[in-house]
Amino acid sequence: MRQFVVVGHDAPTTPDFALDDLAGAAGRLDVLCRCVTSAFFLSHAIRDETRVHLVLADSFTVTFEGSDLRRLNPDERSTAALIRGALERREDAIGHQPVESSPGVSIRRRGFETTLDALTPATTLVHLHEDGTPVVDYDPPSDPVFVLSDHHDFAPAETDLLADRADARVRLGPKPLHADHAVTVAHNYLDTDGFRSY
Amino acid sequence: MRQFVVVGHDAPTTPDFALDDLAGAAGRLDVLCRCVTSAFFLSHAIRDETRVHLVLADSFTVTFEGSDLRRLNPDERSTAALIRGALERREDAIGHQPVESSPGVSIRRRGFETTLDALTPATTLVHLHEDGTPVVDYDPPSDPVFVLSDHHDFAPAETDLLADRADARVRLGPKPLHADHAVTVAHNYLDTDGFRSY
Repeated sequence: MRQFVVVGHDAPTTPDFALDDLAGAAGRLDVLCRCVTSAFFLSHAIRDETRVHLVLADSFTVTFEGSDLRRLNPDERSTAALIRGALERREDAIGHQPVESSPGVSIRRRGFETTLDALTPATTLVHLHEDGTPVVDYDPPSDPVFVLSDHHDFAPAETDLLADRADARVRLGPKPLHADHAVTVAHNYLDTDGFRSY
Repeated sequence: MRQFVVVGHDAPTTPDFALDDLAGAAGRLDVLCRCVTSAFFLSHAIRDETRVHLVLADSFTVTFEGSDLRRLNPDERSTAALIRGALERREDAIGHQPVESSPGVSIRRRGFETTLDALTPATTLVHLHEDGTPVVDYDPPSDPVFVLSDHHDFAPAETDLLADRADARVRLGPKPLHADHAVTVAHNYLDTDGFRSY
């Protein structure tokens, strides 16, 4: 299982945003949408052994479960509609219980730290960072959780948390990438078993 | 210089499409838009040594020139607006002369073959294909032109043309990727000098 946690600092926490202005009033939700499609789409298939957690303004986390996804399309707008659908169910998310808003899409009342708490016991937490170990020198773990930020850097408190929790800090290349491109490269790295052979 | 040619089989050739329906009535223009942003965006910079040619239904080619781009944003909708702006100038594109519709974006009356004709003399044409040589076994060329197709496979005539013209047929991993993800991986491959070191 490969997992990606993407922190959306300016992301909406209510469903009253316009699908026509994802890069503006919707708090750069376009970035998170592209992370979702980068995580799941192959040319003629969905990566079903993948899970994505979008942390929305440290308040809610929307999780996409590859094996259950039914209505995901590759464009930003339709992915944003799935996130909006999850936010329409936010009042039903009580405690840490998830609410499924469409097949494979669920929302929980969880911020960044509680999302990491729930993921870390049985996985390898990888902080993608431009000062990390070059990925070519890092043996691919079997159950990685890659943690990324949207168009902003991680906030100081998030950085401190990651310094404490992450098993590794890894960079994917010499040039800092957008989060969605980092997801694509991380997948390719694992697909090719660290590029050693395939 | 890195170049990408992306063939949009169903892409519009007139500007009368809606930015709200890129994945539908606009002939999957969303795919081409994501290829453009994958080609140019780094975290805090534009890849200025990059050029992208979108072949629209074998009729027009819209070229994005990294060193001149001024109004590119990472979301699909704003990129589609730049393509629409280019198509609004299509009547001014006479012969093979380009018309610049916004800084770094130009349109030419060229289909797939004439676009390849114009590119191939001084470059290395790389056909990205799932049956190609694994990229790890392929020495990165200095001036590559990567040729990709949108959500459709190349048509038989296009495949024949590529068989004749391409210098190499290369695959980027064991799993077939969407075109925009292939652009991201190709860049990362070149960034890391074939993953040997960085």
